[in-house]
Amino acid sequence: MSDFQILPNHGLGWLDASGEHADIVLSTRIRLARNLQGHAFGPRARVNDREAVLEQTRRAMAKVELLAGSRLLELPNLDRRTRGMLLERRLASRELLGDVKEGPSRATAVLLAAQDPLSVMVNEEDHLRLQGLLSGLRLKEAWNLVDRLDEELGQELPYAYHHEFGFLTSCPTNVGSGLRASVLVHLPGLVLTKEIGKVLQGLGQVGLTFRGLYGEGSEVVGNFFQLSNQTTLGKSEEELVDHLDKIIRQVIQYEDQARQVLLRDAPQVTEDKIWRAYGLLRYARSLPFEELMNLLSGIRLGVGLKLLPELRVYTLNKLMIFTQTAHLEQAAGRDLSPGECDAHRAAYVRSILSKEGPATPDSGIEQTDSPTEG
Amino acid sequence: MSDFQILPNHGLGWLDASGEHADIVLSTRIRLARNLQGHAFGPRARVNDREAVLEQTRRAMAKVELLAGSRLLELPNLDRRTRGMLLERRLASRELLGDVKEGPSRATAVLLAAQDPLSVMVNEEDHLRLQGLLSGLRLKEAWNLVDRLDEELGQELPYAYHHEFGFLTSCPTNVGSGLRASVLVHLPGLVLTKEIGKVLQGLGQVGLTFRGLYGEGSEVVGNFFQLSNQTTLGKSEEELVDHLDKIIRQVIQYEDQARQVLLRDAPQVTEDKIWRAYGLLRYARSLPFEELMNLLSGIRLGVGLKLLPELRVYTLNKLMIFTQTAHLEQAAGRDLSPGECDAHRAAYVRSILSKEGPATPDSGIEQTDSPTEG
Repeated sequence: MSDFQILPNHGLGWLDASGEHADIVLSTRIRLARNLQGHAFGPRARVNDREAVLEQTRRAMAKVELLAGSRLLELPNLDRRTRGMLLERRLASRELLGDVKEGPSRATAVLLAAQDPLSVMVNEEDHLRLQGLLSGLRLKEAWNLVDRLDEELGQELPYAYHHEFGFLTSCPTNVGSGLRASVLVHLPGLVLTKEIGKVLQGLGQVGLTFRGLYGEGSEVVGNFFQLSNQTTLGKSEEELVDHLDKIIRQVIQYEDQARQVLLRDAPQVTEDKIWRAYGLLRYARSLPFEELMNLLSGIRLGVGLKLLPELRVYTLNKLMIFTQTAHLEQAAGRDLSPGECDAHRAAYVRSILSKEGPATPDSGIEQTDSPTEG
Repeated sequence: MSDFQILPNHGLGWLDASGEHADIVLSTRIRLARNLQGHAFGPRARVNDREAVLEQTRRAMAKVELLAGSRLLELPNLDRRTRGMLLERRLASRELLGDVKEGPSRATAVLLAAQDPLSVMVNEEDHLRLQGLLSGLRLKEAWNLVDRLDEELGQELPYAYHHEFGFLTSCPTNVGSGLRASVLVHLPGLVLTKEIGKVLQGLGQVGLTFRGLYGEGSEVVGNFFQLSNQTTLGKSEEELVDHLDKIIRQVIQYEDQARQVLLRDAPQVTEDKIWRAYGLLRYARSLPFEELMNLLSGIRLGVGLKLLPELRVYTLNKLMIFTQTAHLEQAAGRDLSPGECDAHRAAYVRSILSKEGPATPDSGIEQTDSPTEG
């Protein structure tokens, strides 16, 4: 029995690709780390600390306007598949999910606001991790939303705060604002032109860091990078958000330039690469997730370059989320072996692209030149 | 100015896939090596020998019933592209075409019978090489046709014949019947199940040899093998043809068995491989010839396994012939750089498959299982 019904749409708001630069910037995320006075933090928190935090959160959420209608999902009560789906939708971290065999720790929970973009992880590395997840490049909007939630929650909960350091956190790197602002960007142009190394190095010099799709410790696949601020101390939240926004816009510019270079210097190779990716997605009978991500990267570049104009960014985003294992198992209504998973993934991609893919696949160069057949 | 109009359809009869086992056996070829008395053979033939042979042939063809309406194309009079097309249609050998820079030698020619399957190379390794090229496995039919041409020509031309050795040829391996019977077979099942080495070794033991698509010295691409008799001495032509026919039918059986093994032991991998090949052919913007041949091998296997039932063998054959360089240049009406050639090849394949490919690309396993999208 699955708990899927408890999160049919949750965390999927960003798929709609409504935000600015949505073809390059998949999503914007703001998270704030908060802890409660009177309870040990992080690894030193004992079960009674954690349970008290969860109970305080439960009571507080009932009083917070922004959380009206929200639900608190306690992870130990959820089945494995639903927990997997929370991870795949980036509403829960690997850490919160706990060890694969042992499952989540007691008193871990995810609070899902009725208002889609907001959620709170309870008893992860910090007592609370407030999160706002929006489509495209919308740092200020996401910040305002999470800031408002933070303010309302802070009126109900005794945040641990130090007059000199700011908000106290489990890990010293988060002390201060407790803010991590991150954007998930797709940089195939910079990767293909081999400029990416230089750009990432430059980001390090201005206080940014990068990660893979699933956050800390995850690998970069399909040219999708999560860029975020590295430091939280010594700057106001607004300054951090503004700084990141400025840098990201620069990265987008570099990516745009790299794409123009591709079109100028290797139009045929680029076009071929994009259409081959489309052809494989359209017809393959088995797709490992990592290959899928690389092929999605190819067609996403095609959409950006207007070579696949009929494909919507929404479709691309959907293909990323619903092709992950827990989502595929959910759709199949049963567990899937890795081989079955690859087959179901391919079947899902085919069915979506046959409905939402380019209708005229044979547009393109040299089309009129087919040999006479005598 | 191209001489294409002189061979619009010639040598393409076998494309129609009308013969027996046409999905596995692409074509049957019978050739007879003949030389004329009174002229030096092969490398020792001087220009006046060669010109005399050509002249004698010209006079003889006018009297031979089977050659009514035929034409004699002198290679030095043809443009490079038309010569290339003769090679690509297997009506002329690389040897007859001569050195790429210097072009064909004087007095080399190809005689094209009005009746499509018959042709004669003049002044190749032997004075005359009579050839019959038919679709599918039709060794006896091809033999009867070429035998009749040989008989009629032999009444007009003084064949060099030795009462003990039989027909004399430039190379001793052809002495006797001067016959080479060969079939072009597609053996992906044996290659994928890694049985091919054993089968080829076995063929060697029963007097058969194998070559690539373009005959002697050419490499095997796309799992297409030309199997032929190795010896010509000591057996009647009928015996040679019967023997080859028997062996080929055995090879076809082995191939069929290997395909059943694939379907039984690796159905998903096989199906995936076939559809991926189709996807790439359907959408790639650049296709090198060797890759094309490998992908064609994939979808030809799919047709054989009834996984691509709507694709006709005729279409597959056509894609092999018209995607070769000279044919592509002919269609484009100009010379093509290698890069342009790959692009034109891909465009041609796309245009044919969009018209003649499967209409319902998304049939297959697991199709009903697409996840709900909430």
